[in-house]
Amino acid sequence: MDLEALKKDLKGHEIEDNPQIVKQKSRDFFWYSPVLKRQLDDVTGDLVATPSSEDDILRIVKACYDHDVPITTRGAGTGNYGQAMPLAGGLVLNLAKLNKVLEIKPGSVRAQAGAIMAAIDEETRATGQELRMHPSTYRTATIGGFIAGGSGGVGSINWGGLRDFGNIISLRVVTMEEEPRVLRLTGADLHKVSHAYGTNGIITEVEVPLTATYDWVDVLVTFDGFIDAVRYADELGNQDGILTKEIAPVAAPVPYDYFLRHQKYLKKSQSVCLVMVAPFAMDAFIAFTERFGKGSVAFRSDTATEEEMKGLPPVFELAWNHTTLRGLRVDPTITYLQVLYPFPDHVEKVARLTRQFGDEVPGHLEFVRFDGKITCFGLPIVRYTSEDRLEEIIRIHEENGCPIFNPHRYTLEEGGMKQTDAVQLAFKRQADPKGLLNPGKMIAFEDPDFDFKSDKTFLFPGLAR
Amino acid sequence: MDLEALKKDLKGHEIEDNPQIVKQKSRDFFWYSPVLKRQLDDVTGDLVATPSSEDDILRIVKACYDHDVPITTRGAGTGNYGQAMPLAGGLVLNLAKLNKVLEIKPGSVRAQAGAIMAAIDEETRATGQELRMHPSTYRTATIGGFIAGGSGGVGSINWGGLRDFGNIISLRVVTMEEEPRVLRLTGADLHKVSHAYGTNGIITEVEVPLTATYDWVDVLVTFDGFIDAVRYADELGNQDGILTKEIAPVAAPVPYDYFLRHQKYLKKSQSVCLVMVAPFAMDAFIAFTERFGKGSVAFRSDTATEEEMKGLPPVFELAWNHTTLRGLRVDPTITYLQVLYPFPDHVEKVARLTRQFGDEVPGHLEFVRFDGKITCFGLPIVRYTSEDRLEEIIRIHEENGCPIFNPHRYTLEEGGMKQTDAVQLAFKRQADPKGLLNPGKMIAFEDPDFDFKSDKTFLFPGLAR
Repeated sequence: MDLEALKKDLKGHEIEDNPQIVKQKSRDFFWYSPVLKRQLDDVTGDLVATPSSEDDILRIVKACYDHDVPITTRGAGTGNYGQAMPLAGGLVLNLAKLNKVLEIKPGSVRAQAGAIMAAIDEETRATGQELRMHPSTYRTATIGGFIAGGSGGVGSINWGGLRDFGNIISLRVVTMEEEPRVLRLTGADLHKVSHAYGTNGIITEVEVPLTATYDWVDVLVTFDGFIDAVRYADELGNQDGILTKEIAPVAAPVPYDYFLRHQKYLKKSQSVCLVMVAPFAMDAFIAFTERFGKGSVAFRSDTATEEEMKGLPPVFELAWNHTTLRGLRVDPTITYLQVLYPFPDHVEKVARLTRQFGDEVPGHLEFVRFDGKITCFGLPIVRYTSEDRLEEIIRIHEENGCPIFNPHRYTLEEGGMKQTDAVQLAFKRQADPKGLLNPGKMIAFEDPDFDFKSDKTFLFPGLAR
Repeated sequence: MDLEALKKDLKGHEIEDNPQIVKQKSRDFFWYSPVLKRQLDDVTGDLVATPSSEDDILRIVKACYDHDVPITTRGAGTGNYGQAMPLAGGLVLNLAKLNKVLEIKPGSVRAQAGAIMAAIDEETRATGQELRMHPSTYRTATIGGFIAGGSGGVGSINWGGLRDFGNIISLRVVTMEEEPRVLRLTGADLHKVSHAYGTNGIITEVEVPLTATYDWVDVLVTFDGFIDAVRYADELGNQDGILTKEIAPVAAPVPYDYFLRHQKYLKKSQSVCLVMVAPFAMDAFIAFTERFGKGSVAFRSDTATEEEMKGLPPVFELAWNHTTLRGLRVDPTITYLQVLYPFPDHVEKVARLTRQFGDEVPGHLEFVRFDGKITCFGLPIVRYTSEDRLEEIIRIHEENGCPIFNPHRYTLEEGGMKQTDAVQLAFKRQADPKGLLNPGKMIAFEDPDFDFKSDKTFLFPGLAR
């Protein structure tokens, strides 16, 4: 790559090459993982470009193509797998200034990729609408980053995940060819670039569905036993008439130890189910909870005083990856996993693995719709001792029929389905013939002969530099 | 009962005693069933009262109580099981004038019981909202009648049924005691009077949840085989990201023979899946349909010309009980059944019964959420020959693990779970000690010794008069 020539070509663009700032903009939340921390801690780009328009992007892409400079696109850097980290150096494309909401219609919003999700909702809420789903980093994450590197989140209990038909309506994508093109993808074509970490196109604009917005009520329901909390969550998720947005059981002592602002409502021995309920559904929710019997409502935001609410984070900031984040603040030695407990015996599988690991792997589940059924993902805390033991914990989950989406890997395949995604690979060959977009993240492109069935972890050669 | 004394007491109220008009207001859609037609054709009340307020109702109830006159409450009379028919004569309480929408909030509407559902939505739509579910008689049925005598409908694919916690928020109910009371029921108490046919209270006001409103797109997808249409419906229902409001496969030749306004889009050999899709989900819906492969989109309202749309009923008026209604207009000798095909082998059960009965029982399914899972109710057409054969068809369904909600019975129990509803019975004893509310409909009250396990059909003695 010829960085000096690139800089000359990019005169007039907003470019940053102060190494400290570039390094800061080359990082995400990879440090959740002790494995990625070891591998990626030194990763940095060479410069950061902050375009203000799609036209800027087209010029930057053209110049980088000409000078063989890799581009790693970045939203807010809230991913956990090094998605936005430039393994081969080069240019970090910071989309923070492409943050406009372009159009709000009944049922949909079109926004620039760098728009922050909470900021989008601030505008859509005036029309009685909000985004269907968002990560726990809602207040900082960008919509483009969520689509490029996320899978679901708060709201997935109703709408499933980003992979599902209908949760993305259209995307505008810039290719990295000799003459960069702007494509508009819809329908089945969306899969080409969604959850591809920006390896095969730069998402510049996003159109996603909206749903009705409400002043969601945050509720903490406490249980003496974790499995009671899990059964409660499962039954609640299967209540077709009670509108919730989030259902997440968390095993003792995690809630008391890590949810410090809410500690006063909890005992160390209590497991908790975190819930967001539509305000008009509270009567039904309470009636259901009373009928279930074993849980107690320890906190509900709709009856809390203003004084009480001060300084309390919203429930979704106790959930998804924020559970682990709060844990890391208290105990930096922990880490986590990502587990799918497949329907229909998900509760039983959770019970079995809970018995097996005890407090080494305290449970944290996120209930979601998955292929039409209510089931749960796990984001359990892991009291980390070694990479070997972590691998063993992963293996035991898989032996019990619970696939792991490994958050200790920076490649698409190893963090996902452990197989080549032929559609994304074909699109990369077409849209990024020089392999300059976020190098090192798509094994199928970097090393077509890599054997996913082997026990080997992929190591991107660029990391050795 | 002392009708003359009652009339004196009700001076100043709107009372009708012209026998022809009273008989007309004493009927519902019971004639869907040849069995009910035989049993109930002569049923009539003695007079009709049309109150304009809850206070009117309280005075009418007090007077009827004093003079031992039964009250059968009536919405629009669109029920199919004789719910609103006064088996013991007396007063028909017509709630047509209690039709005001009282309050619209984010997520809920409060209306008088006699408000017509389509009229409620006309008002809520100004706030971007609509009712979660409605029967196919949406344009004539009242919200109170739906709650007292319905179970679900268009929208149940998302929200389940009225029996589910959360689909009714609160009800105001007038009791029939010496001093009539007005109660407000919420939470678990709602079950006391919902789907009780007005046997234990008079619903005067209803509060129900709302959801986001859209210009739903009507779609007809055709299939060469019925079971392909069923599989398609099942997979579509399990698509978490594609927002639909109605999914109903109907077996050939029913669509061609009975959906006369849509006949030009169909062939006699084609089975059809009726669908209502959110407009912003059409791309995803088409992508899904193409991936499924076996169906063809024969009609979609969003691309039809204005000329084409003229005279076409909305798709929901081809579905639920309107399928049978359209059939009866073409062939008055048919009737129908109501079947539950329990998850998870509902498709297989449909296939087995379809093979068994062939064109004697052409399939019509309504996909719904039921206890959190997508499954289907059946409202199959029955080419009726005799009551004995109808009973045999019912028996064969039950032997195959498919419970029948028998639409050829006028009692709550026989049309439903075939067992005493202890909560509704206890509430009737309290709220209607003289047994004057819609007599003959709750077996557990009329004949506590009735054996639900016997093969006998309950016969209300009052019908013999």
